[in-house]
Amino acid sequence: MVSLASRIQGLDSSPIRNILKVIDRPGMISLAGGLPDSHCFPDLHIDVDTQLMQYGASEGEENLRQWIANDLVARGILADANSVIILSGSQQGIDLTAKLLIEPGTPVAVESPTYLAALQVFKLFGAQLLDYDSSQFRHSDESFAPALLYTIPTFQNPTGKVYDSATRQQIARQCDAQGTVLFEDDPYRELSYEPCERKPICAMVKSAPWIYQSSFSKTLCPGLRLGYLACSASLYPYLLQLKQAADLHSNRVAQAAVYSLVNSPDYHTRLSSLCELYKNKRDRFDRLLNHYFSDIAQWDVPPGGLFFWLRLKTAHPVDTRTWLPDALAANIAFMPGESFYSDARPASGTIRLNFTYANNEDIENGIACLAQIIRKKLNACS
Amino acid sequence: MVSLASRIQGLDSSPIRNILKVIDRPGMISLAGGLPDSHCFPDLHIDVDTQLMQYGASEGEENLRQWIANDLVARGILADANSVIILSGSQQGIDLTAKLLIEPGTPVAVESPTYLAALQVFKLFGAQLLDYDSSQFRHSDESFAPALLYTIPTFQNPTGKVYDSATRQQIARQCDAQGTVLFEDDPYRELSYEPCERKPICAMVKSAPWIYQSSFSKTLCPGLRLGYLACSASLYPYLLQLKQAADLHSNRVAQAAVYSLVNSPDYHTRLSSLCELYKNKRDRFDRLLNHYFSDIAQWDVPPGGLFFWLRLKTAHPVDTRTWLPDALAANIAFMPGESFYSDARPASGTIRLNFTYANNEDIENGIACLAQIIRKKLNACS
Repeated sequence: MVSLASRIQGLDSSPIRNILKVIDRPGMISLAGGLPDSHCFPDLHIDVDTQLMQYGASEGEENLRQWIANDLVARGILADANSVIILSGSQQGIDLTAKLLIEPGTPVAVESPTYLAALQVFKLFGAQLLDYDSSQFRHSDESFAPALLYTIPTFQNPTGKVYDSATRQQIARQCDAQGTVLFEDDPYRELSYEPCERKPICAMVKSAPWIYQSSFSKTLCPGLRLGYLACSASLYPYLLQLKQAADLHSNRVAQAAVYSLVNSPDYHTRLSSLCELYKNKRDRFDRLLNHYFSDIAQWDVPPGGLFFWLRLKTAHPVDTRTWLPDALAANIAFMPGESFYSDARPASGTIRLNFTYANNEDIENGIACLAQIIRKKLNACS
Repeated sequence: MVSLASRIQGLDSSPIRNILKVIDRPGMISLAGGLPDSHCFPDLHIDVDTQLMQYGASEGEENLRQWIANDLVARGILADANSVIILSGSQQGIDLTAKLLIEPGTPVAVESPTYLAALQVFKLFGAQLLDYDSSQFRHSDESFAPALLYTIPTFQNPTGKVYDSATRQQIARQCDAQGTVLFEDDPYRELSYEPCERKPICAMVKSAPWIYQSSFSKTLCPGLRLGYLACSASLYPYLLQLKQAADLHSNRVAQAAVYSLVNSPDYHTRLSSLCELYKNKRDRFDRLLNHYFSDIAQWDVPPGGLFFWLRLKTAHPVDTRTWLPDALAANIAFMPGESFYSDARPASGTIRLNFTYANNEDIENGIACLAQIIRKKLNACS
């Protein structure tokens, strides 16, 4: 028997992986993953510069880091090209941050619910997860003293919420007061369908160390696996060494492709069109939910991002994972809510539905069919 | 003060990174990094399939995994597409393996000297490093019982050595006898300039769990950041989950480009030409070393790979790091030997020189100039 590192006990089999495995099945309608609409991907014809085929810098290409830094400054974050590290997708930023800050027992504050693959990494490194409700904790609440606070304040995953200015300030003050490292994950910020506060909390902290990350997966395409982080100067050298130890550096061809796309004259038109398409898909999804789900679930219309978060109307919370086999058998994939909670609660009575990936016809069929399955399950319980 | 995870105390600043930073300086002649000759990179014009721009499978594209599995079977390794995980460069395989198997105090056997960025990762995860000399340890030597044994048996980094069949068998038997996980790193195997044993040790183990990894960085190009691992069935699900937690999956555009290149009709011609070019560069490098270094150093001509390993002729070992500032000031970069030892010994009296990256003129000037600097340093000592 091989003796595995004890951290492996904290390694959950990811439910997303298990669902992604079946969504390629012909006929499957997926409302499960956080996938963009493939029709929005840019045309990419890459003539690769020989120079970019050689080994490169761990921090990434200078021109792309400079473009990102300019963008961050426009959002209010104190950054320059030397505060930025290009990542092989923003999932990597979670891994690097966990390596830097988390060891067994380290208190890490997470929204409840939150991004399941962040929970997975934090648990792998042995974090003691502290759930927080951003609307409830008080500034300098001494009973709440995490080493690291992870937040997705803009179109949160899975709830689709956006934090107002007061809540953002409160989180910033809390981190400042307790020296908590603020870790802000901001992949959805460009997918905004209503006017709302999107100022990064990392632009509001005064003394707390911070790590801010985002991604090109939602605005351009996920297949290139490119994201970035920026951070306080005190953390940068460590994160850069950890990046180097993780994979030396990110794909240079992808970095050049992204640099070219974000500098193309139609980049801003592309973002506007994407938001318009997704807003229309969201509104249509909401109308369909109202038609099929209004008697069995409640939800808020998300002002941005990729997800609706449904709370089922039941006397007692139900374990929505138990509905998955029937849904998959009917060729509908959804995300049970349980996986988004740090305690992997036995029954959350919630599900997450993605409204961007599937086409209009599949979305209508998927919602109708899923409502029928869930209604039947709920009737069987009552 | 931020409280960092205690593993960060084991995080060395990598000397390679510090050298790579200066080798872009105009006029710098680099004999330091393990860089291929950029003139050998393939022409790459990529028309990206929209489908490949979407999220993909954590294990990688099926067609590329199948091609790799066929190649592994031809080398004698029991593998199929479901034993393979595509990596974002083979450095990532070291990270995943360390996460799976190493916690503070885990005994990990390493060649002395060995690849410095492997040492960096093993130390980061708290390994107790046990140096081994592959020609000396006995089968079932009970005083030597590592949980993991890391080896680069074919054109070893930094020594350029290749292990004969008996040594490979001995390592395999040792792992079988003690249930040690065999971790074989094989990025240089295609760069073979003489007939020699290259059978993977992973093809020789009977019961020991094994992880075998290689890379497309040396045969195609490093900038795409693509490598792979294959492993025992018992380890696969864990490594796959760790891969997902690290970066979801590797760049799909790069995977498609590599698949197309390895299936192109001129792939084998490309490998032959590469070996011919590198063999000529090696022979010329050896002649120059004989001319400039024969009175001050000893070396073996490497039968493959990228490096010469020079042992300086001195009464007492010298710290070759102390020569670096003068060499860099003269626009010559080399790798001091100290970083390749697990104990970061204060004086190794060794240096590693790369013979593939620089052009012929730079190589001649670089060797001549470096010999002059070193001779002066040695004279100053004596």
